[in-house]
Amino acid sequence: MPPSATPHMTPEEFRRYGYAVVDWLANYQRRVESFPVLSQAAPNSTRALLPAEAPQQGEPFELILADVERIILPGLTHWQSPNFFAYFPANSSGPSVLGDLLSSGLGIQGMLWATSPAATELETHVLDWLVDMLDLPRGFLSSGSGGGVIQDSASSAALCAILAARERATEGATNRSGVNQQQQLLAYCSSQAHSSIEKGLRVAGIGSANLRLVEVDETFALRPDALRAQMEEDRRGGATPFFVAATAGTTSSNAMDPLDRIGRVCNEFGAWLHVDAAMSGTAALCPELRFIHKGLDYADSYCFDPHKWMFTNFDCTAFYVRERQRLISALTIIPEYLRNQASESGAVWDYRDWHVPLGRRFRALKLWFVIRHFGVEGLRQYVRRHVAWGRQFAGWVRDDRHFQLMAPAPLNLVCFRHVGPDDFNAELLRRINQTGRAYLTHTRLSGAFTLRFCVGQTNTELRHVEAAWLLIQQTAAQMRLEAAGHNSPI
Amino acid sequence: MPPSATPHMTPEEFRRYGYAVVDWLANYQRRVESFPVLSQAAPNSTRALLPAEAPQQGEPFELILADVERIILPGLTHWQSPNFFAYFPANSSGPSVLGDLLSSGLGIQGMLWATSPAATELETHVLDWLVDMLDLPRGFLSSGSGGGVIQDSASSAALCAILAARERATEGATNRSGVNQQQQLLAYCSSQAHSSIEKGLRVAGIGSANLRLVEVDETFALRPDALRAQMEEDRRGGATPFFVAATAGTTSSNAMDPLDRIGRVCNEFGAWLHVDAAMSGTAALCPELRFIHKGLDYADSYCFDPHKWMFTNFDCTAFYVRERQRLISALTIIPEYLRNQASESGAVWDYRDWHVPLGRRFRALKLWFVIRHFGVEGLRQYVRRHVAWGRQFAGWVRDDRHFQLMAPAPLNLVCFRHVGPDDFNAELLRRINQTGRAYLTHTRLSGAFTLRFCVGQTNTELRHVEAAWLLIQQTAAQMRLEAAGHNSPI
Repeated sequence: MPPSATPHMTPEEFRRYGYAVVDWLANYQRRVESFPVLSQAAPNSTRALLPAEAPQQGEPFELILADVERIILPGLTHWQSPNFFAYFPANSSGPSVLGDLLSSGLGIQGMLWATSPAATELETHVLDWLVDMLDLPRGFLSSGSGGGVIQDSASSAALCAILAARERATEGATNRSGVNQQQQLLAYCSSQAHSSIEKGLRVAGIGSANLRLVEVDETFALRPDALRAQMEEDRRGGATPFFVAATAGTTSSNAMDPLDRIGRVCNEFGAWLHVDAAMSGTAALCPELRFIHKGLDYADSYCFDPHKWMFTNFDCTAFYVRERQRLISALTIIPEYLRNQASESGAVWDYRDWHVPLGRRFRALKLWFVIRHFGVEGLRQYVRRHVAWGRQFAGWVRDDRHFQLMAPAPLNLVCFRHVGPDDFNAELLRRINQTGRAYLTHTRLSGAFTLRFCVGQTNTELRHVEAAWLLIQQTAAQMRLEAAGHNSPI
Repeated sequence: MPPSATPHMTPEEFRRYGYAVVDWLANYQRRVESFPVLSQAAPNSTRALLPAEAPQQGEPFELILADVERIILPGLTHWQSPNFFAYFPANSSGPSVLGDLLSSGLGIQGMLWATSPAATELETHVLDWLVDMLDLPRGFLSSGSGGGVIQDSASSAALCAILAARERATEGATNRSGVNQQQQLLAYCSSQAHSSIEKGLRVAGIGSANLRLVEVDETFALRPDALRAQMEEDRRGGATPFFVAATAGTTSSNAMDPLDRIGRVCNEFGAWLHVDAAMSGTAALCPELRFIHKGLDYADSYCFDPHKWMFTNFDCTAFYVRERQRLISALTIIPEYLRNQASESGAVWDYRDWHVPLGRRFRALKLWFVIRHFGVEGLRQYVRRHVAWGRQFAGWVRDDRHFQLMAPAPLNLVCFRHVGPDDFNAELLRRINQTGRAYLTHTRLSGAFTLRFCVGQTNTELRHVEAAWLLIQQTAAQMRLEAAGHNSPI
């Protein structure tokens, strides 16, 4: 006789505890501004509060939820705080969270069309919507030879682009028998491209040494002439230039690589062009900001992250290819236990063949919720505010003789520093973040330690941007006083 | 002046709509048994209900939620139905869904320790708990040189294991300059191993031709003597056997590779041993079922999926390595904009370096909720029921002269077929699934079309297993009658 077990959580209990979690989150949304943005926790401070062993018997839900408040909250860096200006945003919104809750609660697997047709079809459909919404090349639409898929991150999208390019360049020989160094496949990106390009090349067995970092101009954008010269030299040397990654908005400084000129070079050499617009792609919701995508028609693949700046909680990278068959043939493997009539009819897509993982959650739901809840116009309003405030902030920097802009600020990211040594700037950053009233991160531009200020959190208002600038100015003024021998506060 | 925007969803609205979604899900849980398990939707039937363009203006939340019912629901295959016996389960539970809701609502990024210390520390801690709970090798604990990390899927875990092994075998040369075919790295798994092993080798630039499929014994388990013979032959030929994937519970038939004997062969050749226990690992919660892990001490890496059989919604693969430095050095890349004091102190872990994606959501929350809500004993109760019912089902098959068992059924997966031709069995499966009252899938064993019946959904009770067996028997009887020329129902 099988032993009996108590029901894990009845629908009625789920309703009660579900309400409690929703209440807790609504309350969190109200309080989030009151927490230090960057967690002040010391290493091991969370673990020190956790019991060494898992409980043998179940515990009351109320106790678990109370421990979120007591144990987890102090160890969080609040990415949903309106005072979060670090890295790139990973913003979110109510409709996204609730769409994601439905995905978790339905608990379906979208690996094959047959394992939940609506999951595949909604994903294809919403990614087609985004092509229109951002005015992306029509070649990315599912109605032609292209198509879109949700990946977990721009890093994974870059890896998939590299794999599709690798197989195209070697006519499938690499999947069959591995990378052949004699062919010397070479990849290219600017010195400012995201580290995921190099990581992807390592993963794909190409190696860092076969990535050429092309020099940039004074705006930190890739120089197409330098790209062409390098590719020509490499080809003369017998190598195969197979892949170019261009960036619409680099992570370091939001530099915009000239896609049109890069695209023409790629065409000339038969190299795959992947365009990474991880954060900045969202700007193309607004017609006046579509300059970031000029030349995107040349791209073989493209991605942007609704989970960065389009109010959709992580993970949700929208990845497009112009020839889906290139991607699928690079990634498909069909064992017997996954065969089914629908797939073999050829009438449906199985997204399992569009990325590395087999299983996949129903991520299109949250994206659908966000687009419908905001509407295209609503999304534009938010993006326009962020860009306006980013430019306003850049103006304040320009007007303050103690500070200097370190790069153009075409959208919502401003790179700047206090005049003087790197140490001063590093200490300035440390002090600002330690107040808990704002969170900024840094980069290095032209060799100099540079602060980054990125406006993109959903709930950020002008007052938060103003308060952050005041905090930066006051902290710097205090440091200048101290440096001059005065230790009293200004 | 920046334009104004209406608040996207106030905390009060979030509470109201959050309650509505919780209600909908509680109601879904009550109704789930009434839906056809396998969606009966035709290709394009979901898309046909969706407007061609995204709405320009936002829509009422009530309307969006109503469309989930109207448009999405008919296109779902119900993985959380107690009548789901297909593939491997992807089961879930209330506490998991609510822990995941917190993760979505907090919206933090756990890529670095500093970007939310609690996310990293809870993950490390809960994965240490699991080492105790499953009695895994102590070498996987974070307190030594090993450690655990949550990956999205066993496929991604396999890829990471391959990369760590590849870099160990080539002393980092592959990351630097790519795969060198002259070294001829060779990988091994049984002919029954999951397709993700071959896919991972393709991704990693090793290629399918460098994977040796080792023959299996009559239980479909890898034959260690055949493995050793193959590795010896390959080494004599100048190749480098670098990686072996063993499976504790194959996807096709739940075969258990003999880890201890395979491990000794790996030791002899200096090959990395990765053990994939994607579904079956959860069984080790029960001391009497730990035979599945006998010999696991030899493993360099290991994974199992709480998102398959441990009541935790996708995605949540627990991946362990014995020497974390091997994994980290294979996957780390540190650009300036991710540098921070905590990381450079060496006192913390940055999980970004443990997998391909950079960004990562707070997945440990749901796992923590599940373990605490059920308690170790509560989890065991459910697993024991599933195993008892799986064995009971295997007994019924054995006792019915029309059916035959096709493989041992050590846990909760039963592989069986109706005596007679493949066509009969394929049609039997089609008819069963078309009733909507149960969902099974198939595989091929010893060349024969074989039905798979896997008991693992959270809400499955004995009555569901009994009803499914009755349905199978009756459908087959009807088909036998038809074959004998009688077309009337039995």
